[in-house]
Amino acid sequence: MVRVGIINVTGYMGAEAARILHGHPGVEIASVTGRSEAGKPLGEVFPHLAPLGLQVEKELGDVDAVISALPHGASAERLAPYIKRGLPVVDLSSDFRLKDAKEYERFHGPHPAPELLSQAVFGIPELHRDEISNAKLVANAGCHAAAAILGFAPAVQAGLVDGDIVVDSKTGLSGAGRSLKLGSHFSETNESVSAYGFDGHYQQPEMTQELGALWEAPAPRIAFVPHLVPITRGILATAYAAPREGTNGTPTEKLRKLYQEFYADSPFVQVADAPPSTKQTVGSNRCLVYPTYNEEAGRFIIVSCLDNLGKGGASGGVQCLNLMLGLPETAGLEGLALYP
Amino acid sequence: MVRVGIINVTGYMGAEAARILHGHPGVEIASVTGRSEAGKPLGEVFPHLAPLGLQVEKELGDVDAVISALPHGASAERLAPYIKRGLPVVDLSSDFRLKDAKEYERFHGPHPAPELLSQAVFGIPELHRDEISNAKLVANAGCHAAAAILGFAPAVQAGLVDGDIVVDSKTGLSGAGRSLKLGSHFSETNESVSAYGFDGHYQQPEMTQELGALWEAPAPRIAFVPHLVPITRGILATAYAAPREGTNGTPTEKLRKLYQEFYADSPFVQVADAPPSTKQTVGSNRCLVYPTYNEEAGRFIIVSCLDNLGKGGASGGVQCLNLMLGLPETAGLEGLALYP
Amino acid sequence: MVRVGIINVTGYMGAEAARILHGHPGVEIASVTGRSEAGKPLGEVFPHLAPLGLQVEKELGDVDAVISALPHGASAERLAPYIKRGLPVVDLSSDFRLKDAKEYERFHGPHPAPELLSQAVFGIPELHRDEISNAKLVANAGCHAAAAILGFAPAVQAGLVDGDIVVDSKTGLSGAGRSLKLGSHFSETNESVSAYGFDGHYQQPEMTQELGALWEAPAPRIAFVPHLVPITRGILATAYAAPREGTNGTPTEKLRKLYQEFYADSPFVQVADAPPSTKQTVGSNRCLVYPTYNEEAGRFIIVSCLDNLGKGGASGGVQCLNLMLGLPETAGLEGLALYP
Amino acid sequence: MVRVGIINVTGYMGAEAARILHGHPGVEIASVTGRSEAGKPLGEVFPHLAPLGLQVEKELGDVDAVISALPHGASAERLAPYIKRGLPVVDLSSDFRLKDAKEYERFHGPHPAPELLSQAVFGIPELHRDEISNAKLVANAGCHAAAAILGFAPAVQAGLVDGDIVVDSKTGLSGAGRSLKLGSHFSETNESVSAYGFDGHYQQPEMTQELGALWEAPAPRIAFVPHLVPITRGILATAYAAPREGTNGTPTEKLRKLYQEFYADSPFVQVADAPPSTKQTVGSNRCLVYPTYNEEAGRFIIVSCLDNLGKGGASGGVQCLNLMLGLPETAGLEGLALYP
Repeated sequence: MVRVGIINVTGYMGAEAARILHGHPGVEIASVTGRSEAGKPLGEVFPHLAPLGLQVEKELGDVDAVISALPHGASAERLAPYIKRGLPVVDLSSDFRLKDAKEYERFHGPHPAPELLSQAVFGIPELHRDEISNAKLVANAGCHAAAAILGFAPAVQAGLVDGDIVVDSKTGLSGAGRSLKLGSHFSETNESVSAYGFDGHYQQPEMTQELGALWEAPAPRIAFVPHLVPITRGILATAYAAPREGTNGTPTEKLRKLYQEFYADSPFVQVADAPPSTKQTVGSNRCLVYPTYNEEAGRFIIVSCLDNLGKGGASGGVQCLNLMLGLPETAGLEGLALYP
Repeated sequence: MVRVGIINVTGYMGAEAARILHGHPGVEIASVTGRSEAGKPLGEVFPHLAPLGLQVEKELGDVDAVISALPHGASAERLAPYIKRGLPVVDLSSDFRLKDAKEYERFHGPHPAPELLSQAVFGIPELHRDEISNAKLVANAGCHAAAAILGFAPAVQAGLVDGDIVVDSKTGLSGAGRSLKLGSHFSETNESVSAYGFDGHYQQPEMTQELGALWEAPAPRIAFVPHLVPITRGILATAYAAPREGTNGTPTEKLRKLYQEFYADSPFVQVADAPPSTKQTVGSNRCLVYPTYNEEAGRFIIVSCLDNLGKGGASGGVQCLNLMLGLPETAGLEGLALYP
Repeated sequence: MVRVGIINVTGYMGAEAARILHGHPGVEIASVTGRSEAGKPLGEVFPHLAPLGLQVEKELGDVDAVISALPHGASAERLAPYIKRGLPVVDLSSDFRLKDAKEYERFHGPHPAPELLSQAVFGIPELHRDEISNAKLVANAGCHAAAAILGFAPAVQAGLVDGDIVVDSKTGLSGAGRSLKLGSHFSETNESVSAYGFDGHYQQPEMTQELGALWEAPAPRIAFVPHLVPITRGILATAYAAPREGTNGTPTEKLRKLYQEFYADSPFVQVADAPPSTKQTVGSNRCLVYPTYNEEAGRFIIVSCLDNLGKGGASGGVQCLNLMLGLPETAGLEGLALYP
Repeated sequence: MVRVGIINVTGYMGAEAARILHGHPGVEIASVTGRSEAGKPLGEVFPHLAPLGLQVEKELGDVDAVISALPHGASAERLAPYIKRGLPVVDLSSDFRLKDAKEYERFHGPHPAPELLSQAVFGIPELHRDEISNAKLVANAGCHAAAAILGFAPAVQAGLVDGDIVVDSKTGLSGAGRSLKLGSHFSETNESVSAYGFDGHYQQPEMTQELGALWEAPAPRIAFVPHLVPITRGILATAYAAPREGTNGTPTEKLRKLYQEFYADSPFVQVADAPPSTKQTVGSNRCLVYPTYNEEAGRFIIVSCLDNLGKGGASGGVQCLNLMLGLPETAGLEGLALYP
C-alpha cells in the first residue's frame, strides 16, 4: 500500500480526496494536515470522515506520495521540499498548471517557485497519459478548464474549428471553497444565477495553453465567462466555435464518431447520447461530453459536464496519482455518480 | 377601472398576472378562466390567490381587455373572437410574436390564425413603445428572447457588432410551466444543470426578428442554447459577439454610456454597476443589463437578467397593457424585487 | 405622509422593511441607517432597493416614527432616545419582547434598558390589537414565536389543551441574517436539514409568556426545537399537545370553527383548507394555520406557517406600525405571496 | 459471487440498489427488471448506471437472491414465487413489514399474500441481527420508521420513556419516487416546507410495532407527522417523549452512554457529538443519532438522520442481504457520505 499524505484536508477539495482514497485498494491515507484545525480529530471537522479515524496534523508524517489541496501560492511553497526529494506529488491548486510564469503572475502575483514549473505536467490524463505516468509533479487541471478542454480537445486536434471559442461555464458553490464570503452565503446565492470573472479568470489561460497545444498557430482566443448556479457540486461548460475558415462544419453524427474514437481508451470520459446534466456525474470521476454541430447557426456547440470536486478536482487528481504510481488508472475511482 | 379578463389563470403565468393585477390602481380582474379547474374557487387551486375571492370560470364574462396565458396554438384560437371585436388583447404565448407564419410553423405546426399576424405588435415596450400604445394585439416577448433582446439591442442598433451572436441563457423551472414532466420533477432537476433545445428553440427566431430589425442586412445568425438551472424564477442570458468587421470594439465605459442613453426613458431596464443576479429581479418587472467589451477576447459580452414570470412574462404583459390602455407605463408595476 | 426611519437597513430584516414601506400609501421612508455601509447609496448594498434612491446614513435624520432592525442589545440602546421622546417605535429585535428581564438575561446577558420594558407591547396584533394601537413601543414577535403563538393561541385560550406543548419549527436561512457564518454557507446547508438550539432558544420564553397569558396557571411547558431547512424565506411550525386532562380532545371540524371565529377579524391569518406550505406566504404578511385533532394519537397537531421576514418580521412590524399610527391595519400589506 | 436480481430498477430505490451492488465484493448484479422500460439499456434510463452495461428486462433471469424495489402490493405479488422457492429475498416495499395484516389493510387495502407474513423479519439489523441472518424474507424498514426506531429504541428498551411519542420527520423528495405528481414538481416544492399525512401514514404502525416490542404493555401511542423539505435525499426525525411516570428523566450524558453501548456493535449507527445534519449521511449507509434530555421541558428530544435511499432504503436492504448471505455486514457499504 502506498502511503499518501493530504495537505489541507480541511477544505472541500482535501476532504473529497480523503473520501476517495478511503476506498482505494492500492493506497492508504498516512497523514493529513490542516492549518487552523491541527490537533483535532478529522471527524470533528467533517463528521462524514469520522470513520477514517484520522487526526488533523500540522505537518505531514512519513509518506510515499503527496496530494496538496492548498490554495495557490501556499501550495507551491509547501510542496517544494517534497518535489525536490522526488516524491510523487499531485497539486490540486493552480500553482503548476501554466508553463509560462508570466501568465500565472497576471492573476496571482509572482510565482513562488518558477524553477519547478518545467517539471510539471498538466493533469489531464486524456491528453497527457504518458507524461503523467512518467512525472513526479502533476498539476491537476482547474475545474472549468477540465470541462472545457475535454469538451473541445477532439475538435481542435482534428482541425475543425476556428481560433475563437466562447466558453460559458456554470459552476456550483463548492468550487468557491469553505472560506466564508458573501458570495457563498446561502440567502444570497440560493435561487439565483450570476456571472463573474469579468476582470479575467485564471483558468482561461489553462484552456488557451492546452487547446493551443493541439492547434496550429496562432493560439485560440477564448472568451470565458464562469457563472454561479445554486448547486453544491457540478460544472457544465457550453462551448461555441465557428468551423475553420474555408470549411463547412461537420455533421453531428460524424463529430460524435470522432469524439468516440478520441476517448475510446479513456474510461472516464463518455460521449453522451442525450444532453447530459451535472447530476449524472456527482461524486464520480466521470466527464460527459455532448458534441454537436448546429447547421443553422454555423457553430460547433459542445456541452461537457463533471463534478468540480470529482473529475474536475480530487478524483481527477487520484486518477493522475494512479498513473504516476503505476497503478491501474481506475483504481479507487469505479464508484458511480450519486443519482438522484 | 378597466375590467380585465385572464384566460388560463391556472398556470404559473396566468396566476402571476392575477397577482400583479391585484395591486393595480387602474384595472380590476373581472373574470378568470382555467380549463380543468373551472368551477373551483381560485384560492383552492392557488391558495396565495385566495384573497382575490375569484371563481375559475369556463369562459370569460364581460371584460374590457384580455390577457391570455394559454399555451401556443390554443391561445390564438381562443383570442381570435376578442381580437376581431377590437378588444385590447395581450397574448403571453408565442402565437403572435413572429411576423412570418413559416417560422412559427417550423416549431409549432400550422399557425391557427395567420390572418391576424399583421395586427400584432411584438411586446417589448423599450423597442416598440409607440406601436404598442396604438395596438389592439400585443404579443408579449418570450422570456429568453426578452432578456437577449434587451441585452443586445443597444449595441446592435449602434452598429457595433458582427452578425454572429451566441446567446447562452439560463432559466428557472417555472418557465416550463405547471404541467407534469420528468424534466420538472424535483429529484431530477434539483442540484443539476443541463442544456436543452438542440433541435432548435422557438424563441431563437424572436431574437433574430427583433435584433435583425435594428440591423442592416443581412440578419444576424444567433446560436441560442437555453439551460435549465435549479431555481424557480429567473433568466440570465449571457450573449457574446465580435465587433463589426473593420472595427476594434468599444471600451466598456463608452458602451455603458450608450446603454444608459438607450434606456434613459425606460423605467424598468437598468444598466447594472456590477454583474447582476437573477435574484435582484425576482417578482419585479425589472431587467438588469450589464454590457462589457472584453479586449483580450475581442468580444462583446453582455449579461442581462429578469424574472421569466415578471418582465419576461406576466408583468411585461401588464406593462404593454398599460400602454395600450393609456395608463401610466408603470401602473401596478412599482413593486421591488423580493430579495433575498 | 408619516416619515419613517429604518435603523440597520443593511440586514435582511431592514431591507425587507424598506421594500414594504416603498409601496405604503401612508408612509414615506425618510431616512435609513447602516453601520458599516454608511455613506453608500442603498442601491449599491442592495441593488433591488436602488429605485428607492436612498443613501445609507450613520444616524437617522428627522423622522416621525422608527423601525429598528438592529440585533438585540444594540437595538434597545439605539432606540432608547426615540422611546424617551415618545416617538412611535417598532423594534424587530428581541430586546423588548419579554416582560421579565431575567428571562432575557438567560439568553442575552443583562438587559440594556430594563426600565423601558413595562412600556413595551408584544407585537402580535391578533392578540394585542388594542394595546398596540395605544402603544409607543412595540416589540415585534420572534419569527418562530409568531408562528407557534398564532398556531396555538385559539386552542389554548379555549382551554382545550394540556400544559405541555411540543413546537417543532423549520426555518429558512434568511432568519440567520446576512452576517457570514459556516452555518449559513451554501455548501454546508444546501441539501441538508438539521436541528439546533439544544442549549435553549431565546424565542421559547416568548411562546411561554404569550400562550401562558391565555391560560390558567400553571404556565405551559414548551419543548421547542428549531430546524434549519434549505430555503431562504419561510417558517413552518408543527405543534403538538394532548387534550386537557379529563377531556377527550376536540374533533377537527369543531376545532376549525373555533379557529375561524378567533381569527374572523384578523385579515392576515387564514385557517387553511389543506396542509399549507411556506411558499404560499413568501413575501406577504400572511400566516396560514391548519388546526387538527388526531384521534388515534390523542393529540392536537397544529401547523402554522409564514414568511420569517414577512408576518414573522418586517411586514408584521409594519402591521403594528399601522395600528400605532391610526392607519388601516392592512395599509401597504395587501401584496399577495410570490408563488411559485 | 452471489448473483442478485433487482426488481424495478427503474425507480430511485432500485437504481440506488444497483449503484451500491456495483461496488460490492461478494455480489454481482445478474439481472434487473423494469416495467415500462423493459428492453432498453439501463444506461438509457439512468445514464449514471451506464457503466454497469445492463439491459432492463421484463422478468428476472437466473438469480441466487432478489431485491425488490417495487411499490407495495405489486411487490408481494411478484416476490411470492421466489419466497416459495426459498430464495433469499429483501423487499424494500412495505408489503411484509407489519405482522398484522389488518394494520396493512388500513392503509393499502387487502394484503396480497398474508400467508407469507409470518416468515418475514423486519429489516433493522440493529434490532434483529440474528433473525435476519436466519431469514429468507426480510422486509426493509420504511425510511421514516428506520430513523425514528433507531432514534428511540435504546431509550424505550431501557424503560426510560412514557408511552406517548411525537415523531416529527422531515424528508427529501426522492422518497416520493420518480412518478410524476404535483407534489414532486420542482416549482411547487422548491423553497417550501409542508406537512402531510394527516389522514394517517403507513409507516406509523411500523414504529408502533417495533418500539412496542421493546416496551412493556401497553404499546406506545405515536403522533407521527412527516414533512416535505426541498432536498433530494435525507430524512431527519426529531422525536419527543416525556420520562416514564414516576421518573425524573435521564441526564443527557448518561443517555449518551446508554446509546453508545446499545450501538457498540452496530457499525452504521453513530451517536453524534453535535446535532447532525442529513448531509452528513448522503449516499452512505450511516444513521446519526443525537439523544438529549431537556430538563426545562421535561422531555427526551432525540434527533436521528439518514439517507432515505441509503440506510433508510437500498443500502439498508443490502446490509440485510449481507447478513442473510453470511457475508460481512459491511460488505459493499463502506463508502463515506458525499459531503458537501
